[in-house]
Amino acid sequence: MNRAEFDLDQLLRIAGEYQGYKINIVDLRRFLALLLDEQPIDLWDYTRKSDLYIRTILSLLYALEREKFLYIDGAGMMSLAQRGGSLADFLGIRKTAKPFIEKKQWYGWELTPEYKEILEIIKELYKRVNPQYQYDQAPLVPEAAVYKVAYGIEKGDFTGKDVVCIGDDDLTSVILALSGLPGNVLALDIDKYLLETIEEYSEKNRLRIDTREHDLCKPVPENLKGRFDVFITEPPDTVTGISLFVSRGVELLKESPGMIGYCGISLIACPPQGLLEIQKNLTNMGLLITDRIPKYSDYPPHRTELKHVEVPDCYDDFYPPEKVWYVSDLVRVKTAIGAKRMFEIFDGDIADYNSDAERFA
Amino acid sequence: MNRAEFDLDQLLRIAGEYQGYKINIVDLRRFLALLLDEQPIDLWDYTRKSDLYIRTILSLLYALEREKFLYIDGAGMMSLAQRGGSLADFLGIRKTAKPFIEKKQWYGWELTPEYKEILEIIKELYKRVNPQYQYDQAPLVPEAAVYKVAYGIEKGDFTGKDVVCIGDDDLTSVILALSGLPGNVLALDIDKYLLETIEEYSEKNRLRIDTREHDLCKPVPENLKGRFDVFITEPPDTVTGISLFVSRGVELLKESPGMIGYCGISLIACPPQGLLEIQKNLTNMGLLITDRIPKYSDYPPHRTELKHVEVPDCYDDFYPPEKVWYVSDLVRVKTAIGAKRMFEIFDGDIADYNSDAERFA
Repeated sequence: MNRAEFDLDQLLRIAGEYQGYKINIVDLRRFLALLLDEQPIDLWDYTRKSDLYIRTILSLLYALEREKFLYIDGAGMMSLAQRGGSLADFLGIRKTAKPFIEKKQWYGWELTPEYKEILEIIKELYKRVNPQYQYDQAPLVPEAAVYKVAYGIEKGDFTGKDVVCIGDDDLTSVILALSGLPGNVLALDIDKYLLETIEEYSEKNRLRIDTREHDLCKPVPENLKGRFDVFITEPPDTVTGISLFVSRGVELLKESPGMIGYCGISLIACPPQGLLEIQKNLTNMGLLITDRIPKYSDYPPHRTELKHVEVPDCYDDFYPPEKVWYVSDLVRVKTAIGAKRMFEIFDGDIADYNSDAERFA
Repeated sequence: MNRAEFDLDQLLRIAGEYQGYKINIVDLRRFLALLLDEQPIDLWDYTRKSDLYIRTILSLLYALEREKFLYIDGAGMMSLAQRGGSLADFLGIRKTAKPFIEKKQWYGWELTPEYKEILEIIKELYKRVNPQYQYDQAPLVPEAAVYKVAYGIEKGDFTGKDVVCIGDDDLTSVILALSGLPGNVLALDIDKYLLETIEEYSEKNRLRIDTREHDLCKPVPENLKGRFDVFITEPPDTVTGISLFVSRGVELLKESPGMIGYCGISLIACPPQGLLEIQKNLTNMGLLITDRIPKYSDYPPHRTELKHVEVPDCYDDFYPPEKVWYVSDLVRVKTAIGAKRMFEIFDGDIADYNSDAERFA
């Protein structure tokens, strides 16, 4: 068999036309290799394990199923059809004998009893918060929020520090305050109702949390500028959303090298060229990426940042998903000398995923 | 007590003068916070756990001991003296109750029996290789080399791929070939003796490893350009060394987005502004940092990249160290569209750590 026999060009063209996002042979190889390693696997586990952009995954799913390289069984499990196996073979793709016996979530780090108690409180409090679609809110699962804060505590970043939570639908301000470790904690959010929930819990339990209603598209209030040692955020996963929230973070941090920021960034939501643009922006702001822990943070299955992305018809019965599939990398940054904000005012859409797909095709 | 009483300015001045590298209050806070959390602790465990630059650590050790804020007992354990405790208190530094019960090395990922066998082979083979000081060779410990390759295997990066090892005193080419997963493996190194050892083992065991004697300061041989899917390297931890080796990597990779590189980068060896410069260079080369796993890779205690850095007299009895203290972050990069090399020829010193300390003060 040769390449022409399979007509890879046509396959890639079909995939590329499905969402208007160009797919190349490297994407195809990567898609097939993971499928060969993990099959049978459903789309959600696949997406969680893959490092491909969601449009790439869905486009290849569409094209490979249409062209009978891949089939989906009644339980939503995807496998290579015989023809798919031949294609993988032809492309020199082989199954990998995994080198590690087991890989546990959160690297097997177990919370102490004290932090397990905090997790239980946060789980209860999550029930009182309704994510607001109009603000593009999409909280992490409670475990992920606690593990994210715990990562920073373990790093020695929060103890005795003034921390600002930039957008706080994950309730990181409450987790931080319950740990008793930071100095001051500020929750900055556009959502009055969310802040009221935080205030109410905080007052009842005598926690030290300040709240401030603020639209992050607008400049940071003068009296908050340069006041914090650390920011923590989980922005909309767009180039603009991440760059803007981090830029606000830089503005809120003390003007000294060595200040810290935590930000979730997802490979799933953002095209590779867009991710590089984010890295360029971080670098230009004078932020050193000290940690980038892949797929550290889980989002709940139904409510995700990617409400606009449609699953192809061949998979429609299994949408919406019922398990975690959308995850973000935990990125830690440190200010260098001369770190500076990127945005002053911003007038646009911070959650325009379609525009990213076009701009960074 | 007030700041004047402690004369922090004088303390920072003494620290800054010790190695001619400027120390600020954020460094001091970070140094004290880790010491408060971990004391008593020896300098080597301290350095391994810290994210400060080695000159910062040694300068603060010198100044704090001289000014009686810190003492070192007969076993080399450092602790805060009473005066140091008061200083920490004054600065609002408190001990952190850790959120995780236990954190295992390599995230608790255990090698499969097959890879444990590979590790045993590599341990034996390491005995035959003498690191060449003139080439700034400094191999990882064998476990770290195997875990580094295993990380990439787990990611699906090596199976069926053409891999180039840029500098191979860690014997990653042998580990890769023993895994049986890659297509072609090339070891590129300046050291003829090292390559002979690899060839000899490879021939005897019918492994597929190509070797090529090459000075990485010189342009990549024409017939190797654009031929590989993945590069793996552990360069000298200087801004130039890392940027040069990675630039050679980019040149060796196929001209397509989605090609992968692995590179070790240490926070210990490089000043923060230098690390930002490296990030700028990676970004300009069109490389997206997809993973940055802190302190993944161990170096052996005695032989390190930092042979030029002297421990202050107050710690002299415990030098050279007898345990792992020098570690590097595992950094994974992915090429974006238009990724390009940074260097053509290079005529300079790739291991000038002193120059980095001056340039990036």
